[in-house]
Amino acid sequence: MTQKTFAFVVYPGLTVLDLVGPLQVLNTYAAAEPSVRVAVVGETLDAVGTDTPLRIAPSHTFAQVPDPSWVLVPGGGAPTMRALGDETLIGYLRESAKTAELMTSVCTGSLLLGQAGLLEGREATTHWTFLETLRAFGATPVQQRWVDTGPVITAAGVSAGIDLALHLVERMSGEDAARLVQFGIEYDPQPPLGALDWSLAPRERMRPFVDFTVREGLADQPELREKLLAQQ
Amino acid sequence: MTQKTFAFVVYPGLTVLDLVGPLQVLNTYAAAEPSVRVAVVGETLDAVGTDTPLRIAPSHTFAQVPDPSWVLVPGGGAPTMRALGDETLIGYLRESAKTAELMTSVCTGSLLLGQAGLLEGREATTHWTFLETLRAFGATPVQQRWVDTGPVITAAGVSAGIDLALHLVERMSGEDAARLVQFGIEYDPQPPLGALDWSLAPRERMRPFVDFTVREGLADQPELREKLLAQQ
Repeated sequence: MTQKTFAFVVYPGLTVLDLVGPLQVLNTYAAAEPSVRVAVVGETLDAVGTDTPLRIAPSHTFAQVPDPSWVLVPGGGAPTMRALGDETLIGYLRESAKTAELMTSVCTGSLLLGQAGLLEGREATTHWTFLETLRAFGATPVQQRWVDTGPVITAAGVSAGIDLALHLVERMSGEDAARLVQFGIEYDPQPPLGALDWSLAPRERMRPFVDFTVREGLADQPELREKLLAQQ
Repeated sequence: MTQKTFAFVVYPGLTVLDLVGPLQVLNTYAAAEPSVRVAVVGETLDAVGTDTPLRIAPSHTFAQVPDPSWVLVPGGGAPTMRALGDETLIGYLRESAKTAELMTSVCTGSLLLGQAGLLEGREATTHWTFLETLRAFGATPVQQRWVDTGPVITAAGVSAGIDLALHLVERMSGEDAARLVQFGIEYDPQPPLGALDWSLAPRERMRPFVDFTVREGLADQPELREKLLAQQ
């Protein structure tokens, strides 16, 4: 039996739920599907920080998983902006895309796909506060839970990775498989305040945060910084 | 300013989304609320495995956070059953409960609260497949997204920790704070197959899995094992 690998990409400072939501979904799926292997890949096996006090360590290095069939890259704040200049990380995404069936992202992870040249001429999404920055990579921003363009799927902010991952399971194996995983992780969401009411979105309050994130994360990369700021 | 600590408990083999869902929510809240500190606590600072290939490392030892104001303990499969016999972990929960405002759990983490003697005479919940085992700890099982009994709140399986955590933020600081966090993690769930249709729950299919989890996890603890199996 040929085993195909789903690679979850780790880099310092990422938003940990971007990674763990879909990882839990695909891992639950893989437990019942021996043809699918899940790997968490990073530049080294050392633990790295996240946007929380939790530290996380990959199971494999990039070099150990050179030909993943599926790739997911999570997003984050300033550390994700810094990662735009991480040639090893961006190189891994670019190389993987040549043979992978599917490249996916959660939240601002789509900017990393963009930097790898994978969003040119595509519709894509990201965290709602960063939508317009996608234009800097030749993408057309769409505010949707996830945007499936075939070989590239991007998801909205943070928690959207769970919905994206269930969509992936459904796309890979159909409704029954996706439903079994959904029962496994008991995904029957009941947000205490209900679904988001977008008329209450704190757009003005978040603007300085986005601006700070881009300026702080890209302090050493003026060209890229101006390219992103031009889209705000 | 007095800073109060929210302690997220780590132990080997836990279900990682049980931990990370609420950790992301409370960390987003704490970023805007300097009186709240988030800590990830474990027996040592060493990385431990999870139910996925991801390894995770705490930020503090139990000894370094002896008096948390709030505690959350995640669940899991066989490793969580094994943790029922982990005197250091259960001791930390029991001691913390003496002074903490609030003890909380996600998924089968409620069994750990039960083992610490915190569910006696209370209503509680857990992963839907383990509901009846709560009776072994003197609790009355309730199938609800979360069960708030005042000083103890238990949540349903895995992904329910996100809803629980937003409820906690609302309880601690009100609707505006909870809404801001909800926009921060863009929690606007859209499960591809919709909410769970409980008439389709794979109850018979899951029964052997639950039985195996209890037998495997409690192989060395026949008394506890029989106590749980008696409730299946």
